[in-house]
Amino acid sequence: MERDMPEELLYEGKAKKLFITEDPQILRVEYKDDATAFNGQKFDRLKDKGLLNNAITVFFFEHLETKDIPSHFVRKISETEQLVRRVKIIPLEVVVRNVAAGSLSKRIGWEEGKELPHPIVEFYYKDDDLGDPLLAEEHIRLLELASEAQIEELKKRGLAVNEALESLMLSKEIRLIDFKLEFGLDQKGEILLADEISPDTCRFWDIESGKILDKDRFRRDLGGVTEAYLEIHQRLTEEIT
Amino acid sequence: MERDMPEELLYEGKAKKLFITEDPQILRVEYKDDATAFNGQKFDRLKDKGLLNNAITVFFFEHLETKDIPSHFVRKISETEQLVRRVKIIPLEVVVRNVAAGSLSKRIGWEEGKELPHPIVEFYYKDDDLGDPLLAEEHIRLLELASEAQIEELKKRGLAVNEALESLMLSKEIRLIDFKLEFGLDQKGEILLADEISPDTCRFWDIESGKILDKDRFRRDLGGVTEAYLEIHQRLTEEIT
Repeated sequence: MERDMPEELLYEGKAKKLFITEDPQILRVEYKDDATAFNGQKFDRLKDKGLLNNAITVFFFEHLETKDIPSHFVRKISETEQLVRRVKIIPLEVVVRNVAAGSLSKRIGWEEGKELPHPIVEFYYKDDDLGDPLLAEEHIRLLELASEAQIEELKKRGLAVNEALESLMLSKEIRLIDFKLEFGLDQKGEILLADEISPDTCRFWDIESGKILDKDRFRRDLGGVTEAYLEIHQRLTEEIT
Repeated sequence: MERDMPEELLYEGKAKKLFITEDPQILRVEYKDDATAFNGQKFDRLKDKGLLNNAITVFFFEHLETKDIPSHFVRKISETEQLVRRVKIIPLEVVVRNVAAGSLSKRIGWEEGKELPHPIVEFYYKDDDLGDPLLAEEHIRLLELASEAQIEELKKRGLAVNEALESLMLSKEIRLIDFKLEFGLDQKGEILLADEISPDTCRFWDIESGKILDKDRFRRDLGGVTEAYLEIHQRLTEEIT
């Protein structure tokens, strides 16, 4: 527990705080219990959410490491904290979808739960003031958010993460509907998976019952939010007997 | 005036009616005086609008023909009517933009009037129930609205139309901000430019004063809608002395 680290807050997001550490290349991430939706219009504080999302994110990043998918993750340092490599975040939300749900259902008129013929990758502009709008690649080029090669690499990484997580979740009897990733550039300009992977950023449905086990429980006032996150954590960490 | 044609109405859109003719490959288009915006929520009837848009569309299609850009246009048959080749419309709105305005300004946060570094082509899903949403190419593939080759061809045609119209309008002291095209497939599966090109489907700004000379006068309650359409028609058809 590196409690002698400087405590300068670098950035406070909706669900996490980022602190400077003694090592300029390393940040400390503190997961908060805050739950927000609809660009911050809906807010609550959910006991243990920070702890659970920290643990779940660590689990996923460590799993992806074994699949040769690099991330900013360095190590867990407390129940609600982890150290990560400092990266320059690419202001794109990379969304990978296996099944129609949420904004995709609204956009193309496919009912929630309809399996896509193949996974798709979407890009959204990480800009709260603009409401995180969908971008076509033309817009990404116009805004110079990523080069042609980076766009292709982001798609490739998104699909690789999807392949790894979809089969992992399947073994836990959970259907991976969709998820949002963020990537950053390290000092050398290499792309690294960053941010978090948790029920805040994924849609998880129980494969048997279809029960929603993610942030949609909060968005849609379904109740049992923390219980769902706990369920995800338990299924991920339980030993298969 | 082929008034012995059967009068079966094939389709009535917001601004035009399509009629079957004796020739199964030819349709008669009648331009209406109806003005609508915001997916039909705003409505008015503007005297001479149908006549002006028919004439302006004919002018543009004939001009594009000289630039080897084929369209469905056959010939004008009355002040408000033209004959066109029957095509199967691809349900995509192909939007070409030279300058930030309208929904692009809202999406990416660029002020209206900001010149884009290069023209861009956007695709929207022609679906009133869904509100004509922006589509990324991933969505077009998912919905099987167009093949990979067709998507590329639509972009190429859109940019070719832009090149032809931008320089034409410049010679009329009008800045071509953006426009929406629709394309269809003929019997042989060839892509043909279809629908209309008019102040209903383009943004035109006077190059000197910046005065809006298009449907935004209607959308934004600026008044002088028909006068603006008349001004476009006059500038297009006046002899340069």
